[in-house]
Amino acid sequence: MSEKTVLSIETLTRLTEEIFRKAGVSPLQSAAVARVIVAGERDACKSHGVYRIEGCLRTLKAGKVEPLAVPELIDDGSGVIRVDAKGAFSPAAFELGAPVLAARARELGVAALVINSCLHFSALWPEIEVLTGHGLAAMAMCPSYSAVAPSGGTTALLGTNPFAFGWPRKDTTPYVFDFATSVAARGEIELHRRAGKSLPEGWAVDADGKPTTDPEAALQGALLPFGAHKGSSISTMIELLAAVMIGDLTSPEALDYLGSMSLLPHHGELILAFSPERFAAGRTDPFARAEVLFEAISGQGARLPSQRRFAARKTAEANGITLTAEEMEMLERLRAGGLDAVT
Amino acid sequence: MSEKTVLSIETLTRLTEEIFRKAGVSPLQSAAVARVIVAGERDACKSHGVYRIEGCLRTLKAGKVEPLAVPELIDDGSGVIRVDAKGAFSPAAFELGAPVLAARARELGVAALVINSCLHFSALWPEIEVLTGHGLAAMAMCPSYSAVAPSGGTTALLGTNPFAFGWPRKDTTPYVFDFATSVAARGEIELHRRAGKSLPEGWAVDADGKPTTDPEAALQGALLPFGAHKGSSISTMIELLAAVMIGDLTSPEALDYLGSMSLLPHHGELILAFSPERFAAGRTDPFARAEVLFEAISGQGARLPSQRRFAARKTAEANGITLTAEEMEMLERLRAGGLDAVT
Repeated sequence: MSEKTVLSIETLTRLTEEIFRKAGVSPLQSAAVARVIVAGERDACKSHGVYRIEGCLRTLKAGKVEPLAVPELIDDGSGVIRVDAKGAFSPAAFELGAPVLAARARELGVAALVINSCLHFSALWPEIEVLTGHGLAAMAMCPSYSAVAPSGGTTALLGTNPFAFGWPRKDTTPYVFDFATSVAARGEIELHRRAGKSLPEGWAVDADGKPTTDPEAALQGALLPFGAHKGSSISTMIELLAAVMIGDLTSPEALDYLGSMSLLPHHGELILAFSPERFAAGRTDPFARAEVLFEAISGQGARLPSQRRFAARKTAEANGITLTAEEMEMLERLRAGGLDAVT
Repeated sequence: MSEKTVLSIETLTRLTEEIFRKAGVSPLQSAAVARVIVAGERDACKSHGVYRIEGCLRTLKAGKVEPLAVPELIDDGSGVIRVDAKGAFSPAAFELGAPVLAARARELGVAALVINSCLHFSALWPEIEVLTGHGLAAMAMCPSYSAVAPSGGTTALLGTNPFAFGWPRKDTTPYVFDFATSVAARGEIELHRRAGKSLPEGWAVDADGKPTTDPEAALQGALLPFGAHKGSSISTMIELLAAVMIGDLTSPEALDYLGSMSLLPHHGELILAFSPERFAAGRTDPFARAEVLFEAISGQGARLPSQRRFAARKTAEANGITLTAEEMEMLERLRAGGLDAVT
């Protein structure tokens, strides 16, 4: 079965939306979730594309996400804009808060968007790109669930806690990075296990906290942070700023709440937006100067982040998104069967 | 000559201040610089202690720092507070801006302090600790001068760009980390060279951009960022936020301006402050919950960052600071001779 189906971005968005509505998710939530999932598929981020749909629905079936909640904006005019997602998926909450965040960042120079009580399953770059689209620099972070041992430790405590940043560019795709603060994703360890391959050194510890290159032992143990104590510190910062500080679940609390890693984590998120014009205050043109830096990076053969993603996007926009027969079957099964069809 | 001298923190501060005044630095600047240098020595951060004095004075002698400039606060009531250091050392500029930053972060939830046109030679943790002392979380970053090749590149472009973060704790020292985004410091490579030892893999590339473990070749080439492309991205973010965005020199521009790595870099700095109370908005007690996280980290044998530094501080506060005969000679030479005594 190596048949492929090519769908336009629009068609796949409509199909994804239908699946979520069939599962009992509100139109508002379904539309926002579909935009983010299709953005992942469009950019060839397979782990954040249609693959995510069933995980979202499994979490819904387990009663760990609110399908009909309407996010609420709480804005006291300060630098902190808050959206209470009320236990729903995060995308609609982000869409509600983002324009307010952008306006406030332009007004004050810097502002923060807190999303509380959401199920955040997407990458951070779709959010970052909304803000770079407003001409702002942006930083985003959120916890996950305990999967990573702190540097020098032995037991899973920190999440794979993603950290993302973006800078707007005129006439081209923005500068964007978005990465897990673990040295590798759990999914990559799973792929090594299935392929019968050992892990590179430094990826994981076993259940006794000892370094291991055995994927099976690693899955029983814990991942390690990227960059040793430095990455571990950044991951801890994310727990503090994007969980503890905003009054939402830390990674160990999120795992306790779920009781399983097969469901998607429930927590909050922190997004900071910066107005380069306000910060530069007329001293120099920040956008022109950033281009000098980017040129110096790519001029020496180092790649700017996200370039592969942007190339995939261009192809998808021109030619549509190619899905495998298995992917199409999964989509059709879920569209027809709703939550009952979730495995 | 293994004689040691023990000075109280106060005495060493007075002596350091006298040295800067003798060199023609204003009382305001001298006092602020002395506080930061003595904090480094007190915390056994030898590379940021009295060792820095001669580098500061050498940069002054080269005409690359303004000894009499008075920093100017520019505050439009927004979330961005700016201090123009007017080419002087950074500590007096920070001291002018910090209380305004703290008040604004309490008012708006989040605020930023931009320091422009300063010579920043200190670690970032003394600044972070001032803000945690106000009960705020804080993040700080600044560029340096080109010494690090971007991941996948071959030539020094990025600085060793430090990144620091702090979280306030009641009744104990704060959670603080402060690290270079290079995998190692130039000084560590120099130490390997002097000891005739090879470098660990992954620290550096040679002048042709090829990986090297030869310290001599590394000093002719470039350092590498920590954590491969992830650390490289964070370092690039620091160039964008703390140089390009604030209208100050990037690491390559700072090196061009100085013409030499034997002088201290001239650029700007970005500090963000967050009010945990404002962000938590009564949902939970962020300070109590942070302690649960810290307990889970240290409870599994992983160390919280900066603990060695805080232990050294405790010893220095109780017993004074111990200096070698060579260090005392250097201090006496500079106190007596001023700029003429700088080698």
